[in-house]
Amino acid sequence: MTEARYDVIAIGNAIVDVMSPCNDELIEELGLNKGGMTLVDTDRARELYDAMGPAREISGGSAANTLAGLSALGAQCAFIGQVADDQLGEVFAHDIRAVGIDFDTPVRPTKNTDTDPPTARCLIFVTPDAQRTMNTFLGASQFLPPATLNAEAVAAAKILYLEGYLWDPEEPRAAMRRAIEAARGAGRKVAFTLSEVFVIDRHGDDFRALIEDGLIDILFANHTELEALTGTSDFEAGIAALDGKVPVLVVTRSAEGAVAVANGERAEVAAEPIEQVVDTTGAGDLFAAGFLYGHVNGEPLERCLRRGAIAAAEVISHYGARPEADLKALMAEKLG
Amino acid sequence: MTEARYDVIAIGNAIVDVMSPCNDELIEELGLNKGGMTLVDTDRARELYDAMGPAREISGGSAANTLAGLSALGAQCAFIGQVADDQLGEVFAHDIRAVGIDFDTPVRPTKNTDTDPPTARCLIFVTPDAQRTMNTFLGASQFLPPATLNAEAVAAAKILYLEGYLWDPEEPRAAMRRAIEAARGAGRKVAFTLSEVFVIDRHGDDFRALIEDGLIDILFANHTELEALTGTSDFEAGIAALDGKVPVLVVTRSAEGAVAVANGERAEVAAEPIEQVVDTTGAGDLFAAGFLYGHVNGEPLERCLRRGAIAAAEVISHYGARPEADLKALMAEKLG
Repeated sequence: MTEARYDVIAIGNAIVDVMSPCNDELIEELGLNKGGMTLVDTDRARELYDAMGPAREISGGSAANTLAGLSALGAQCAFIGQVADDQLGEVFAHDIRAVGIDFDTPVRPTKNTDTDPPTARCLIFVTPDAQRTMNTFLGASQFLPPATLNAEAVAAAKILYLEGYLWDPEEPRAAMRRAIEAARGAGRKVAFTLSEVFVIDRHGDDFRALIEDGLIDILFANHTELEALTGTSDFEAGIAALDGKVPVLVVTRSAEGAVAVANGERAEVAAEPIEQVVDTTGAGDLFAAGFLYGHVNGEPLERCLRRGAIAAAEVISHYGARPEADLKALMAEKLG
Repeated sequence: MTEARYDVIAIGNAIVDVMSPCNDELIEELGLNKGGMTLVDTDRARELYDAMGPAREISGGSAANTLAGLSALGAQCAFIGQVADDQLGEVFAHDIRAVGIDFDTPVRPTKNTDTDPPTARCLIFVTPDAQRTMNTFLGASQFLPPATLNAEAVAAAKILYLEGYLWDPEEPRAAMRRAIEAARGAGRKVAFTLSEVFVIDRHGDDFRALIEDGLIDILFANHTELEALTGTSDFEAGIAALDGKVPVLVVTRSAEGAVAVANGERAEVAAEPIEQVVDTTGAGDLFAAGFLYGHVNGEPLERCLRRGAIAAAEVISHYGARPEADLKALMAEKLG
């Protein structure tokens, strides 16, 4: 196995978040799936945007957010994802490169602005309880062509991190399967985040097969995703169901903290206390960032979880799913 | 004079702000004009964006920010400004309409993305002292054609508010001159903000002529702009120089508060105390919003100033140049 060039390479949706505060009445009026992520088409995206208050645009995308956290902590990272040749694509590419992440997936050309898909955006309504309700227009992001996958870069990363959301569209799914092969062929680890219950409803069989085939080394889930994947609403039974099948399992439980089980060892962590939860967008993404940073550096399981909890707490204390504080300094202060 | 449909109609740059925190070393390294606004061309904008950290995009534009504040307070407003047919143009239009402001300036078509100017953006570097350093790429904003000016809408507003920044490019200057005529013809008031010293350096003679001709009813300036306009560094002498020539003069002095002189009456206000200044972008714009809201409702001069100070304090307590808190409730709480 050659020396790794990256700590983590991720394949994910290349999305710009369009975020706006709103009240619960609007969530109801628009018939939104509060707290969830719903895919929307052009017309619905237009309708929701028209109903949305003034917004701010901040780069997002689940795996991309995780990399932003990893990079802030000092990890070497690369991102694979599809943007279009438009202004939001420039914004996404700028923001990810600006934190030192390699991003060289070729831009998808926009020949006809009426028919070619634009860069993905996620319309996020944030209610006063800090809950985020996401409505994603995937646009170009769903057309990540397997043929352009940089298998050499995948093979050069210690961990390949995959976002469940992106398992839904066909092209990226094929690209991810190819990436798993490339990582495996190079003796690398594969980490996977389940992302959302609806993805498991649609592709749970794929995920279970990947797990049975021993292709997932590190699995991230929240408690409802664990339930959807294992078919049991009993938390401990859910964890037991994956015992021995996934070398490292990390399950987050929002305000109740998180649990990790790795090769027989188990650790738990409470949620990091914070003054005010402002916007929960990116909580899981940043938990994964903190955990992976510890993991890739061979730290004890509990310390990996603590890093996850600290990173998640930082990102929910402000608008936007990418860290704003100096995560490295924050962790040095909290963990010594 | 027919019944007014709007309290304030404004002509201004239609800009999306691209904001990022940075340290003073970067300001120095990039040779930026700290605290000021500098116009940049395509190449310089590219260079600065490449050097900028991860950013967030929030609609801006001086006069547009002022209207956003006025609208939040309950005023009826309309905006005139030029966006291109692109994603940032959509963002700008959405954000201004989302707060209830009429905005019907026809979008400038983008036939060729390589040669047609895109929507204006302002690259804003925010240093730890909360100072904002603005670098504006004007793009489509400088091509506001006088021919498309909605003179009927101008005539239907109690106050026409003009942004000095936009006096610099030729087409908008002609449009503004036409708007002044339309407002005057309908017996309406004209308010003008001087915006920046460099604008006065270039167009001070125009401004002084407008004032001498009695075409400016309400003039907004900060103390350095007052100095540039009147040619005296003595604050009181500067105010005296405009005495009797401008019915209402409002001069802001950052942390030292503001002064207004109206038809012989004078009032002063201290800066509104706030916990932490985060980003001073939009301070002057929101001061103008608060003041104009009071003025258009016939409130006493001191109360107009207090409204200005409260609105400015809100906007500098967070990132972005448009209000986030409920300004109406905030003023009710502070002013009774």
